[in-house]
Amino acid sequence: MSKPFSIGVDLGGTNLRVAVVSREGAIVNKITVLSTGNVIESLTGAIERLFSDKINGIGLAVAGLTDGRKILTAPNLPILKEIDFVGLLNERFSTPVYLGNDASVAALGESVAGAGKDLNTFVMLTLGTGIGGGVVYNRKLLSIAGELGHVIVEPGGRLCGCGGKGCLEAYASARAMISVAMEAIELKRETMMRKNAGFSITPADIYKYAAEGDPLAIEIFKTAGFYLGIGIANYINIFGPEAIILTGGLTGADIYVEKAIKTAATSAFKELFAKAKIIPSTLGGDAGIIGAAELTYG
Amino acid sequence: MSKPFSIGVDLGGTNLRVAVVSREGAIVNKITVLSTGNVIESLTGAIERLFSDKINGIGLAVAGLTDGRKILTAPNLPILKEIDFVGLLNERFSTPVYLGNDASVAALGESVAGAGKDLNTFVMLTLGTGIGGGVVYNRKLLSIAGELGHVIVEPGGRLCGCGGKGCLEAYASARAMISVAMEAIELKRETMMRKNAGFSITPADIYKYAAEGDPLAIEIFKTAGFYLGIGIANYINIFGPEAIILTGGLTGADIYVEKAIKTAATSAFKELFAKAKIIPSTLGGDAGIIGAAELTYG
Repeated sequence: MSKPFSIGVDLGGTNLRVAVVSREGAIVNKITVLSTGNVIESLTGAIERLFSDKINGIGLAVAGLTDGRKILTAPNLPILKEIDFVGLLNERFSTPVYLGNDASVAALGESVAGAGKDLNTFVMLTLGTGIGGGVVYNRKLLSIAGELGHVIVEPGGRLCGCGGKGCLEAYASARAMISVAMEAIELKRETMMRKNAGFSITPADIYKYAAEGDPLAIEIFKTAGFYLGIGIANYINIFGPEAIILTGGLTGADIYVEKAIKTAATSAFKELFAKAKIIPSTLGGDAGIIGAAELTYG
Repeated sequence: MSKPFSIGVDLGGTNLRVAVVSREGAIVNKITVLSTGNVIESLTGAIERLFSDKINGIGLAVAGLTDGRKILTAPNLPILKEIDFVGLLNERFSTPVYLGNDASVAALGESVAGAGKDLNTFVMLTLGTGIGGGVVYNRKLLSIAGELGHVIVEPGGRLCGCGGKGCLEAYASARAMISVAMEAIELKRETMMRKNAGFSITPADIYKYAAEGDPLAIEIFKTAGFYLGIGIANYINIFGPEAIILTGGLTGADIYVEKAIKTAATSAFKELFAKAKIIPSTLGGDAGIIGAAELTYG
């Protein structure tokens, strides 16, 4: 019989977050650790503080491609690839340990306790520095590669971090928008964004200028939104889901999300678009931890 | 307990094909009927000839989008949408009746008795007049929309029969190639294909001219193959399958398939491309009937 709590770990962000999660997907206790120094030491220390005989297992959400046991590629944090988290934690705590991609696992979290609670089949897209995603089918997370940010939306287009060209992530992520903005600044184009010359620029800055009417800043969000809409249309045509759930830092940018919905509406099969709600996540940054914990219930 | 045989029907082609199929996916007896005249009369007549008390149920493969009970859209044969096949056949033969999209169901057929027999997870693409497909996951057909020919490979590109723009089908199908060839003929471009002016032109004609060295004919296959490769890369990145199985009339065109494989190799995640074999189907045109019959075993 499964025990009533699990430990969920999110290794995806800049900080390491570890929590005790109930069978129903409620976070009971959470520790946030700065992921500087020795990752594995910080991690085992945090788990140690939360571990008890009521713990069913440990689930890890990692930023990278995994096969459930190993991390195959971790473009943003290559060191992760060299650590055998599953083996180490399994030995240290004598409990089952599971591994999942952070964006996929976040979709599972929304299915257990968030915007996907009453849905059988949905696609979740995480829109942040990069773009990731997960697919829940008949209330279970599909154990597929799930590199939903790497569907090609512009053949032969911009080089993507993955080595491919024209991926969704290379057009609709925060990183993509920042890179277009920086280029505009370097080329000394007529835009309020030039105020940031010599400093960094964030999507929040670009959004502020867009809200003040800067045409180039507006264009950046609309172009990114257009490509996001193409990606959404693709996932609607492939999966025919009840919903597309959007999460991550960029979902607050209305120009971007509205352009995406409008583009998807004219690009996807009408019958399939009509049955797919496009809605925001409700768990936000906690979805990964909750989903990771859920992995231990198979 | 399930009975040892099922009836599989393929309504996808120009002819109506009805067969008795064993539990192992072998065709025991097959009838082909010209689908002129009254479709439902021809169909019930053929089933009547094959029906017995050893039949577990009837499975239908149809060219269109279905929800398992009804045909939602049937762009190539609109009359199908108006007929309640499931209700009619269920009443007439007092046996369970199932409905599936022809390309999805063909993937199921390959899983039962064809190129996918030893695979857990694969994507099959049917490359013909249009482009369809199906996804087998953990040895079961995913019951998703599966409109794999309508992933967008060129945003804002050619108008597709589905109403969208830039779909894979609008670039890599036989219909797409024929339309590019016809345009070249109309524009009186320098090409052997002009021999067909005033007549029709088929992919086999274009292939013949390509084999004779006609640059424009070669270009048609290479361009179509490039876009097919983009589609294949997308399905590799999304599903991380063990194989991409290709079937349909166009798979014999080596220029096209080779260009597709080369494009997918440079577009998909290396780790995922490496584990995905790209292989031909082994059942060919019988996959749909076999898969349709398999639907009755749930």
